[in-house]
Amino acid sequence: MGITFSDITVSADGFATGLGQREEAPFGDIDETWLHGWMFDAPDENRAEIDAIVDAGATIMGRNMFGPVRGEWDRDWRGWWGPNPPYHNPVFVLTHFPHEPIEMEGGTTFHFVTEGIHAAFARAKNAAGERNISIAGGPTTVNQFLAADLIDELRLHVTPCIIGAGERIFDGVPPQQMERASVRATSLVTHMTYRPAR
Amino acid sequence: MGITFSDITVSADGFATGLGQREEAPFGDIDETWLHGWMFDAPDENRAEIDAIVDAGATIMGRNMFGPVRGEWDRDWRGWWGPNPPYHNPVFVLTHFPHEPIEMEGGTTFHFVTEGIHAAFARAKNAAGERNISIAGGPTTVNQFLAADLIDELRLHVTPCIIGAGERIFDGVPPQQMERASVRATSLVTHMTYRPAR
Repeated sequence: MGITFSDITVSADGFATGLGQREEAPFGDIDETWLHGWMFDAPDENRAEIDAIVDAGATIMGRNMFGPVRGEWDRDWRGWWGPNPPYHNPVFVLTHFPHEPIEMEGGTTFHFVTEGIHAAFARAKNAAGERNISIAGGPTTVNQFLAADLIDELRLHVTPCIIGAGERIFDGVPPQQMERASVRATSLVTHMTYRPAR
Repeated sequence: MGITFSDITVSADGFATGLGQREEAPFGDIDETWLHGWMFDAPDENRAEIDAIVDAGATIMGRNMFGPVRGEWDRDWRGWWGPNPPYHNPVFVLTHFPHEPIEMEGGTTFHFVTEGIHAAFARAKNAAGERNISIAGGPTTVNQFLAADLIDELRLHVTPCIIGAGERIFDGVPPQQMERASVRATSLVTHMTYRPAR
């Protein structure tokens, strides 16, 4: 049986995005290399963690992670990732606005779920079968799933920077002790895996 | 020449205290073992980090770390630590209310500084000589010194819990990249040392 995991890269102060997210700046007004340099500048030493991010049979993400469109779907938008997104599985996008599924190359299909996180989770579970479910982000979505105790493994990739504003991991999640399952430091990032203490 | 360091134990979401700090609950309304269990329940495996906390020739702390008295010094208070505090050096307490120095056993003397962090820092530097200066806390004080770029080494002791409210490390500190000088995980805590990228 698979697990439900979430990978999220955060600053030392816990931010996964800055303020001012928009099409030209998906992570807002920050130097994105501060957060994600470890994936792009040092992929070899972080290979295990990078591979684990996409080891899923289904993916769930928030609408703001899918794209910059707000309100009604008034323009054609197929994600930030080009014609062949890195998911290669059904991706369930949380939104208040219905949209037909969008089939991409490489096995990724974007489905739009308007009934909330539990409905998305049920559909992802069904689609994933024996494989893992990835709660891909952004932080607001991850926090909703943490608060609902639906995440088995939270993999924080902590980078040595201070961002100071934006969307923050753990906001709104009830106080609790967790299990710290593993810690691995590479040159640009510290990989920390937490599990809820159930 | 010594360095200026700060050791602070924080939750995974960055809190070093909860809400509701008072005499009966110096860290506020939290289960304090979530934060400090590593020091009291597993001192042997964390010996190097515990020893480093008090390796200083002078100490600076905020008034709320010194005690629960607010406003005028209208009662006798000599710190939380009994007659022989663990500092064994001059401790400069930041306050808006003047107070005579208090000499304790074992070499600790509490001095009260009303002229702000730079004045306290100058006095601590003078007292420390070639030894280190410790910015002992709480988080508000540490954040002031971080914002003023007066800390050479920030040693975060990150514990696997979510606190959700209280005083948070990095609040009000300008956005910046840092150097992550070291990471060491023991059973209850992850020791992470940051240095400002100057």
